[in-house]
Amino acid sequence: MQKKTVGVALCGLGTVGREAARLLWAGRARFSARLGAELRLAWVCDRQAAREARALGLGASVRRSADWRQAVSDPSVDIVVELFGGHDEPRRLVRAALAAGKGVVTANKLLLSRRWDELTGAARRTGAPLHFEAAVAGGIPIIRSLRDGLAADRVDEVHGILNGTTHFILTAMAHACTPFAEAVREAQRLGYAEKDPTLDLDGTDAAHKVAVLGSLLAGRWLPPGSVARQGITGIEPGDIAWCVAELKRTVRLVGTAAVRRRGPRPLLEAHVRPTLLPLLHHLAGVHGGHNALLVRAASAGVLMFYGAGAGAGPTASAVLADVLAAAAEVLSGPDAPGRAGSLPQGGGAPCLTAPEAPAAHYLRFMVKDVPGALARIAGTLGRLGVSIARVHQDDPPGGSKPVPVRLVTHAAPRALIDRARGAVAALPIVTGPHACLRLWP
Amino acid sequence: MQKKTVGVALCGLGTVGREAARLLWAGRARFSARLGAELRLAWVCDRQAAREARALGLGASVRRSADWRQAVSDPSVDIVVELFGGHDEPRRLVRAALAAGKGVVTANKLLLSRRWDELTGAARRTGAPLHFEAAVAGGIPIIRSLRDGLAADRVDEVHGILNGTTHFILTAMAHACTPFAEAVREAQRLGYAEKDPTLDLDGTDAAHKVAVLGSLLAGRWLPPGSVARQGITGIEPGDIAWCVAELKRTVRLVGTAAVRRRGPRPLLEAHVRPTLLPLLHHLAGVHGGHNALLVRAASAGVLMFYGAGAGAGPTASAVLADVLAAAAEVLSGPDAPGRAGSLPQGGGAPCLTAPEAPAAHYLRFMVKDVPGALARIAGTLGRLGVSIARVHQDDPPGGSKPVPVRLVTHAAPRALIDRARGAVAALPIVTGPHACLRLWP
Repeated sequence: MQKKTVGVALCGLGTVGREAARLLWAGRARFSARLGAELRLAWVCDRQAAREARALGLGASVRRSADWRQAVSDPSVDIVVELFGGHDEPRRLVRAALAAGKGVVTANKLLLSRRWDELTGAARRTGAPLHFEAAVAGGIPIIRSLRDGLAADRVDEVHGILNGTTHFILTAMAHACTPFAEAVREAQRLGYAEKDPTLDLDGTDAAHKVAVLGSLLAGRWLPPGSVARQGITGIEPGDIAWCVAELKRTVRLVGTAAVRRRGPRPLLEAHVRPTLLPLLHHLAGVHGGHNALLVRAASAGVLMFYGAGAGAGPTASAVLADVLAAAAEVLSGPDAPGRAGSLPQGGGAPCLTAPEAPAAHYLRFMVKDVPGALARIAGTLGRLGVSIARVHQDDPPGGSKPVPVRLVTHAAPRALIDRARGAVAALPIVTGPHACLRLWP
Repeated sequence: MQKKTVGVALCGLGTVGREAARLLWAGRARFSARLGAELRLAWVCDRQAAREARALGLGASVRRSADWRQAVSDPSVDIVVELFGGHDEPRRLVRAALAAGKGVVTANKLLLSRRWDELTGAARRTGAPLHFEAAVAGGIPIIRSLRDGLAADRVDEVHGILNGTTHFILTAMAHACTPFAEAVREAQRLGYAEKDPTLDLDGTDAAHKVAVLGSLLAGRWLPPGSVARQGITGIEPGDIAWCVAELKRTVRLVGTAAVRRRGPRPLLEAHVRPTLLPLLHHLAGVHGGHNALLVRAASAGVLMFYGAGAGAGPTASAVLADVLAAAAEVLSGPDAPGRAGSLPQGGGAPCLTAPEAPAAHYLRFMVKDVPGALARIAGTLGRLGVSIARVHQDDPPGGSKPVPVRLVTHAAPRALIDRARGAVAALPIVTGPHACLRLWP
């Protein structure tokens, strides 16, 4: 008998979960008409489920529980939406749902990037839909564009501004010369940064998203630990101002996943780097809390996507689009032919990574104002194989204050750059943290 | 018995058709693996089918014919790709295919915009897939993003740079002060403009695309004749230079489809206008032959899409993504539940259009250098209800040459602007064509 109703259990009623529940409830007639079957919000699961459901005005037909197990074991539930966040509990939830052949929609990049193989494998075993549009770049339909819009193309590269917190801080430093620590506090005050912003500042959050994008591109799991990662700590407004004035470039935290098809098996170049982009580059024109992605495909060429990377509305919009897609798949049944292509690939050994393409770098060290300092730094870099395109020492401020020395290197492998800047930073004439920014080639 | 093969007939072997055939043939193993069933290029149809198939190296299993009727009547054909271009013959082909329950993929915005109701109706009757990603903005996955990515959202507005020819000409005029006629010739020489570029220059091509986008947004047919339309003829480099210098704005030909939900039934504001955009506006940062779209949705907020709007590779990439989507739908069968949502809506009375939102306008007239000329123009505009924010008369070049008078109006309904500029143009002191540019609000 043909299925007439698709039941949805929404787990996690934080900001995004509440907005998704509200929209799903308010739009149920429209969604059902579109689907040709009833789309029913069957459960909301959260420690505060009862209270939140009341506040949202959800009807009595929507069951509520503090325990997601009740919802997953309900045979009328076909799709589970995981919006808890975190790792352990969501993992149990998603595994249980997929094992029961239920569709899963999640916005959890941490879980996806760490357990890609486990989750895509579970989905393939039961033919259950698995969607995660909201895990990367909030409301921008990038996952769908990669999975469907470019399905017939060969996507070679994705570069993106994927983290709103660091983007806000870099913009504040660039536009108002706000010092780093102060920009972080401002971001916290305005809700752009969490109380402990470490995972944003050190690039971990962006690396999770790169891992998801890279896994999609390669069709194999790219573990987040394989994504080379550098955050924005150490960058000061003076670095940005100098690069804008002298190099006509500005800084963005750019995540990259690029397939290198030279050998018999494709390799992935995958990293998160504070990157100096030409001022007129498309990724440089992105401001505030927005996200942007640049995609390079063999036939389609360069595509750009831009939009809100976070926020309840955009994220909930992406979650619900996934729910509709999963619902259509549920209705066509797990054995529907043609389903293969709609499942994200995985399996086999994890993806191997390629070394980062050589690039020029901007380096800034704080140096004691003693004669010969510049020569010693240049000498150290040269001895370690890094050749210098340009060097600049700011006017000494007087007294014994350290002076910034700024260098732009010629293109060099990142490993060389890292070894050389480590050696320079260890020189007795160099003090405090230094800055290292990759120049977009 | 489960279907094991999906047969494709590719009709039209122009630049795009040849590239699509080449990619489909070269990628058949990959596409079949993705689909879980054999995707077979069964026919190529074109007056030169035999010659082109040989040149492309297509295998002997690919049948070739000058007559598409042979392919459409072949029961092994499940999907027909229409790349003929034009109207009458494609219409016969697409109707025959949909009536036979075969899926259709087309890049034909002319046909789609003129016959939206007829074609979507035919698709709904047989449940046949109907896809047209390549009809708007070439390789940018905008149709898929509107149909699927924002499926659960309420898309209120789409604004786009949708025509590469006019965009190339405006860019040439802006960057090199190339006069209009010369810029058109250069575009023709470089293959950006056709021998008869009328349908590009007068905004007709962009209006077809706005009609397709508007029909998607409203879920009702927006006939292309309902799209208010102004081309780029009459604009001179001096207009652009003055607007850049004085208004910090530059000109793009912008197509708009915007849903106005004030009354009981939604109305569509739909027009193509040369538009003055702030220099830092996202649509202003688009150069050369590229296309870009700005989408405003209730939950997702503002999204931007950018990429190649034409060219064999991008267009073929979009066509083949559609073929894969149609193939998956063919495999799941015409009666698969959940199919409803994947069909574009139509039916009922055509969509009603809303009057254009009032906007400020830049007007430039060539005026004989006689005393009181400026006052008479200002007086005429004022009498017709258009109030002026700013007026500028260039220094007289000497002799009896006409002088440009430039005005910026306050926001006014377009009907008023059109009546007033007509009256001014009819004044005996005014000669030659004038320019009228809408200011982005």
